Amino acid sequence: MNRVIYLKQTPEAELRAEHFELREEADPSPAQGQVLVRNLLMSIDAANRAWMHGRTYRDQVKPGDAMATYTLSQVIESKAEAFKAGDIVLADGIWADRFVVAPAKLTPMPDHRPLSHLHSLLGIAGLTAYHGLLKFGRPKEGETVVVSAAAGSVGTFVGQIARIKGCRVVGIAGGKDKIDWLKSELGFDECVDYKAGDLFKQLRAACPKGIDVYFDNVGGDVLEAVMAQMNDFGRISCCGAISGYDKGHKPRLTSFPMSVVVKRLSVHGFIVLDHADEHPQAMADLAKWAASGQIKVAEDIVDGLENAPQALIGLLNGSNRGKRMVRVAPDPE
Amino acid sequence: MNRVIYLKQTPEAELRAEHFELREEADPSPAQGQVLVRNLLMSIDAANRAWMHGRTYRDQVKPGDAMATYTLSQVIESKAEAFKAGDIVLADGIWADRFVVAPAKLTPMPDHRPLSHLHSLLGIAGLTAYHGLLKFGRPKEGETVVVSAAAGSVGTFVGQIARIKGCRVVGIAGGKDKIDWLKSELGFDECVDYKAGDLFKQLRAACPKGIDVYFDNVGGDVLEAVMAQMNDFGRISCCGAISGYDKGHKPRLTSFPMSVVVKRLSVHGFIVLDHADEHPQAMADLAKWAASGQIKVAEDIVDGLENAPQALIGLLNGSNRGKRMVRVAPDPE
Repeated sequence: MNRVIYLKQTPEAELRAEHFELREEADPSPAQGQVLVRNLLMSIDAANRAWMHGRTYRDQVKPGDAMATYTLSQVIESKAEAFKAGDIVLADGIWADRFVVAPAKLTPMPDHRPLSHLHSLLGIAGLTAYHGLLKFGRPKEGETVVVSAAAGSVGTFVGQIARIKGCRVVGIAGGKDKIDWLKSELGFDECVDYKAGDLFKQLRAACPKGIDVYFDNVGGDVLEAVMAQMNDFGRISCCGAISGYDKGHKPRLTSFPMSVVVKRLSVHGFIVLDHADEHPQAMADLAKWAASGQIKVAEDIVDGLENAPQALIGLLNGSNRGKRMVRVAPDPE
Repeated sequence: MNRVIYLKQTPEAELRAEHFELREEADPSPAQGQVLVRNLLMSIDAANRAWMHGRTYRDQVKPGDAMATYTLSQVIESKAEAFKAGDIVLADGIWADRFVVAPAKLTPMPDHRPLSHLHSLLGIAGLTAYHGLLKFGRPKEGETVVVSAAAGSVGTFVGQIARIKGCRVVGIAGGKDKIDWLKSELGFDECVDYKAGDLFKQLRAACPKGIDVYFDNVGGDVLEAVMAQMNDFGRISCCGAISGYDKGHKPRLTSFPMSVVVKRLSVHGFIVLDHADEHPQAMADLAKWAASGQIKVAEDIVDGLENAPQALIGLLNGSNRGKRMVRVAPDPE
């Protein structure tokens, strides 16, 4: 039997386990032109939660839908020309042991080991950090770069890439353990704890020369505190707005657009999928930096399909360090 | 005697006449290295009000200071090498008949007639519209361009330049008279009246294909309504935030940064002074367009130094059409 996890209802506020339902179903079988795959590693991202709100850059995940995510999967049976059994693919997939999918939703992947790097260093996390920081943040040597959700999948790479570019790197994260880990293990110059109160003052102390580049994963009050300390001609990469994903209210921002005008800020929203033509260069750089030890690959892998709801709920509450995934099956031999 | 208008106190909310004081003083006399000028035309801008809030890209105008603005002035007596009596200059000046100023605050101007064009078409208004729209808005033929404070000094030029670039131009302004004027006189394709209620629906009707470029002069609720209708990869030029200048509260924005991320928007704050190296090209284009009739120069000139407070207060309440100035003395012969 095949296990599939469905979204039962759209959460009004915090996502909880009862919003999901695991069902056992007969194994799916591919029609002509379709592909049957089995899941190996499912990516768990804050964006998964945002997809429940409505249509974004992709269709809404609605009640009754199998929960969507990006998966590293292996082809079991192909009735489509471009794929054959055994292929490793990245799928716009679902939370399930196995599923049938159209080839348009599959991207062939090299059989890279560990496979998990295709979700972290060389996957959406690493590529998002790379493009978002370098293309829109445009950090220059000696500048101060701040990243929120610094201990998250994207944040860990943003900080390390900024350090490679010669910047002073300041992370924003929740809790002393994460802060210590970011500084001692990942080489952040300074970190501030948004749970420890007065973020504004903490940031002021950590960024005595102001902030030149901000990589924003959270929006809301954190963005507000950063905006007030941006230097003239600063750049803000808007990658996400976690603070608004899992709450009944929408955070509101007072300083926009006044600060943007006065400080001549550049603010760019981006989604990594738009920059696919530059992925090869990005992947080459990322692999080189990891091989030389300039980047440590922080992964946070939860075992078992049935634990996917808790893995996502925990991520939204900041329980992860680095790129969270759910392992559905071991890497193939 | 020389008349000088001072800011008596920093307004907490709406600017009123009693925040100013006109004093008669002995004529100033330039020290070595200084220049004595007489005012011809004072520029009246919403930014004058923002300067009272605190330090921006320039020093705050504080209680006890002569009220600051950009002036077209003529040199009466020069004790600085670079200037001589009779020169026409643009000054970082004050509300006064005459004042003494350091040469660093003066820019030589051609003796262009009418002089008022140096404040409007070829001045900060026209140049702000030109750079802000073309450099940061990057409008393409067939796109929809929206501009707020459309009947204001900058807005009238933004709309007309966007039309020259082949865009559908939609203005946001207050009141039927302004709307009619923008459409019949300045060639806007459509206009919406923010005083007539349900701005969101009005915009939807005026922009059936969504909004590609937004030139923002106001921030606040208007920006919020526009953000919701921006197309993917849209560009927002942040030129001002009038809605926050003259109120006790700061307007808050709900859709930022979520919309910025999802729609991959580019948002740029800018101040025209940063783009001085491109002014010659801009002025050449603007003069050409005005000469060919593609741009009409909308000016709104109030006579008499003593009327400057009311000219600024009225501007903040939207009483002007086109570039407002105060004429202190007639153009020299």
